[in-house]
Amino acid sequence: MQATTSPVTQFAASWLPEIDRTLAEAIGNGEPKELYEAMHYAALGPGKRMRPLLAIASCQAAGGAPDAALPVAAALEMAHAFSLVHDDLPCMDDDDMRRGRPTVHKAFGEAVALLAGDALMAGACAYLARFDQPWAAPAVAELAGSVADGMIPGQVLDMIWEGHPDEADLDRLHSLKTGRLIVAACRMGGLAAGASRPVLEALAHYGAHVGLAFQIADDILDAQEPGGSDEIKNKATYPGRFGLDGARDLAAKQIHLATAALSRIPAPLKAAEGGTLDVLEAIARYAIERDH
Amino acid sequence: MQATTSPVTQFAASWLPEIDRTLAEAIGNGEPKELYEAMHYAALGPGKRMRPLLAIASCQAAGGAPDAALPVAAALEMAHAFSLVHDDLPCMDDDDMRRGRPTVHKAFGEAVALLAGDALMAGACAYLARFDQPWAAPAVAELAGSVADGMIPGQVLDMIWEGHPDEADLDRLHSLKTGRLIVAACRMGGLAAGASRPVLEALAHYGAHVGLAFQIADDILDAQEPGGSDEIKNKATYPGRFGLDGARDLAAKQIHLATAALSRIPAPLKAAEGGTLDVLEAIARYAIERDH
Repeated sequence: MQATTSPVTQFAASWLPEIDRTLAEAIGNGEPKELYEAMHYAALGPGKRMRPLLAIASCQAAGGAPDAALPVAAALEMAHAFSLVHDDLPCMDDDDMRRGRPTVHKAFGEAVALLAGDALMAGACAYLARFDQPWAAPAVAELAGSVADGMIPGQVLDMIWEGHPDEADLDRLHSLKTGRLIVAACRMGGLAAGASRPVLEALAHYGAHVGLAFQIADDILDAQEPGGSDEIKNKATYPGRFGLDGARDLAAKQIHLATAALSRIPAPLKAAEGGTLDVLEAIARYAIERDH
Repeated sequence: MQATTSPVTQFAASWLPEIDRTLAEAIGNGEPKELYEAMHYAALGPGKRMRPLLAIASCQAAGGAPDAALPVAAALEMAHAFSLVHDDLPCMDDDDMRRGRPTVHKAFGEAVALLAGDALMAGACAYLARFDQPWAAPAVAELAGSVADGMIPGQVLDMIWEGHPDEADLDRLHSLKTGRLIVAACRMGGLAAGASRPVLEALAHYGAHVGLAFQIADDILDAQEPGGSDEIKNKATYPGRFGLDGARDLAAKQIHLATAALSRIPAPLKAAEGGTLDVLEAIARYAIERDH
């Protein structure tokens, strides 16, 4: 059980209103109403906002003012929402419910869901590109690149997977499918802080390992659901391949590697904002300690 | 009938190989093979490459070296291909064939088609954003903005349209649905040339009118198909609303307005590259003179 006073829940509680305000602004409102309602429904529903939080914490860790990361935070959540809307479509996972609500295509119809997803992704890129800031183009390259070269190839790879994957196969699959966007979140937070290349690299390594830890922990939580352990064996998951205890060991290894990556962020930055690296460390631990 | 020696067919013939070479490079090749094959199939099949040609001609008209527009040309065709792949999906127009070949979802399955479309759009933004050029972020803003704020709202508007549209309704619908990407093509060509704001504005006006002319001409060509005229009456089309002759007059009006917009491009630019505005003028005429 996660205590409500953990550093991560405190950090999340203090930032969620600003993240959601920026997100609503980034999506905007226009005609036709159906489209914008579907986009808001998809992006502003219940959720952990983990990618925005990682971007803000990474910006702080790189010595930036945390609200400098709000634009990239909003764009990251739009890209994440896009991926969920398209994942849920009948031709993909065909899910009727997500986080206790009807999925977007159940609530708005398939065509509007498809197009709302498209508009969220294109809109995220347009929103970032319009900032007259040195980070604008690099942030778009990170975000759109993590989708085109990471998430999407990872999803196709997952669909066509055959045979028994080993640890390296699973790491590669999930690094693409979910990891690249988490790496992008950390790097984009760094970009918003004007971070140097070595700091961006350290944040990227941190993100890669935290991303895998989240994925392994998600797999473990799924496997613990009633009937989950049977189903999980037929999919390319860590518990399916290594058992629950084996998967827990692998998650702990990733957290160790994530924390080690943070040690490469230069000392002056660590000192400057007193305790800001603590948030990234706490998020790493939270990845495997959470119960949902 | 279009003579094979018209300035437009000559211009197209001279640029198509370079456009397709850049396009193939922008899409790239990677794993899984299925995904990249679907993207190449979608973007590099038969087609007029009208948006890339408009970008190159606009770049020339703004005094730029025409091959400076090749990156934006490739990104425009990727965005166009994305829109066609998603349009053809069963939840949208449910088309089995396009330009004499099976549509992407018929050839590769629905899930891969959805994801290939997603990867083409995100990939186009990432590709542009990675150029270390002053036009990189503005070009992404144009391209992604034309999709998020133009094409997609226009498609939803078209889907939910009810009642009898007047000329202003039709212009508004098509300016969003197909016009904004054509405006983006002209502006992005101008951006690649480092054009001033007044030149970009003139190119945008030209593009808006050419876009409508193309749309009206497409509607007329559809209406002339066997059985087309009956079907067209039930849709929000120009011939359905104004008859074939009325639609032809409206197209001629748009071409006149497009040509007038070009007159606002400063004289030195017109003179500098001898005859480069001729191509934009010829494309405007070609919009309504072509037979396919």
